[in-house]
Amino acid sequence: MNKLNIVGIGPGAREYLTLNAVETIEKSDVLVGSKRSLELFDYLDAQMVVLEPRDIPNTVKKAVSYLDDGLNVSVLSTGDPGFSGMLKTIQRLSPNTKLNVIPGISSVQLASAKVEIPWDSANLITIHGGKAPTKDLLDKIDNNVPNIILPNRHISELAEYLIDNGFSPEHGITICEKLSYPDEQVVHVTLEEAKQMDFGYMCVVVV
Amino acid sequence: MNKLNIVGIGPGAREYLTLNAVETIEKSDVLVGSKRSLELFDYLDAQMVVLEPRDIPNTVKKAVSYLDDGLNVSVLSTGDPGFSGMLKTIQRLSPNTKLNVIPGISSVQLASAKVEIPWDSANLITIHGGKAPTKDLLDKIDNNVPNIILPNRHISELAEYLIDNGFSPEHGITICEKLSYPDEQVVHVTLEEAKQMDFGYMCVVVV
Ligand SMILES: C[S@@+](CC[C@H](N)C(=O)[O-])C[C@H]1O[C@@H](n2cnc3c(N)ncnc32)[C@H](O)[C@@H]1O
Ligand SMILES: C[S@@+](CC[C@H](N)C(=O)[O-])C[C@H]1O[C@@H](n2cnc3c(N)ncnc32)[C@H](O)[C@@H]1O
Repeated sequence: MNKLNIVGIGPGAREYLTLNAVETIEKSDVLVGSKRSLELFDYLDAQMVVLEPRDIPNTVKKAVSYLDDGLNVSVLSTGDPGFSGMLKTIQRLSPNTKLNVIPGISSVQLASAKVEIPWDSANLITIHGGKAPTKDLLDKIDNNVPNIILPNRHISELAEYLIDNGFSPEHGITICEKLSYPDEQVVHVTLEEAKQMDFGYMCVVVV
Repeated sequence: MNKLNIVGIGPGAREYLTLNAVETIEKSDVLVGSKRSLELFDYLDAQMVVLEPRDIPNTVKKAVSYLDDGLNVSVLSTGDPGFSGMLKTIQRLSPNTKLNVIPGISSVQLASAKVEIPWDSANLITIHGGKAPTKDLLDKIDNNVPNIILPNRHISELAEYLIDNGFSPEHGITICEKLSYPDEQVVHVTLEEAKQMDFGYMCVVVV
């Protein structure tokens, strides 16, 4: 019985793929992933199944049925499948499927490399997928070390929430947007400034 | 002025290199790294400087002096430079050197992938480089989540220390040894069993 490959493809640019990821994906009959993940492999003949954020359960079911048909199937996970990625999702939706998990470079690792903060002494937090920031975030933040955060949608909301909950408006925040893409930017500002700024959804922040 | 490349080369096997790591290393005039890191690149003409664990400060000085001579220098860090790796070491020894940090797959990520434990909800601990396990480890361990640990030398000592400090001898421990190498092994045993077993220094453990 084939295993379902869950392949980390890194933060986005091709250069962060591992040789193992490339090889596994190139051998696959079916690729399942977000549009931006599949685009990296549009030179391949494999069947492409787009994973729509609204329809993950059905897409995972489809992936598993291709696997049951004897095909070689790879689910692409941006970054590392083990950090706020597809490993947890698939374990939840299809607990009996045998897996072959291939790690990838997480966006938190690339943020840590760009900002030059070792992540063994940082506090890694994901609130990705949640709605507005909640007390959960305050409970997780550690004021003694850098916090590397995979945020939920709006950085301005996050900055406002931190100010409203006791952080100084002058407190620094670093926003790493679209890491590894040509329009990547890394900005150091204050929480007050971040409150007024507009960023896309693809960010890692350091507080 | 050239930047000093600090390049993560992953857990050991070539297949976990990223395309960026390969390209950066292949363009370098000088490679600095442990014997096992340099062996991956013995097909290159670059000058090889072996980083001996006992002589890291002098070797880093040497790397920086090659950089000052205008050469392209890459320091190879196993795993990810930002997790118990060369980033912290070089920041400490040569704080003014401009860096270009390239992330790599950490041994903790590959352990997490093999054991299928998402690391966003695990507790990552490094006591690497320390001597015998101390209270520091007990302070860091969180009994509510899996702990992924980069241990110090002897796993048997670690197991004994945990038993002596209140862990049940029947408590499970997973030892991931020589990940990505042909003689890789992943063993699930009890702490009592681990106390009697002998592992090399290249391990990640999950408690
Ligand atoms: C579903 S999570 C996946 C995280 C992924 N497993 C990882 O390890 O990076 C998606 C979130 O990761 C972050 N992210 C992914 N790629 C990124 C990039 N290239 N630059 C900045 N943030 C990124 C963003 O916060 C995005 O909303
Ligand atoms: C100096 S630390 C470097 C850690 C590295 N920066 C990383 O991210 O994996 C060396 C320790 O990492 C762990 N390690 C490195 N490579 C490994 C492998 N292939 N398998 C298991 N453990 C490994 C071992 O605990 C080893 O003693």
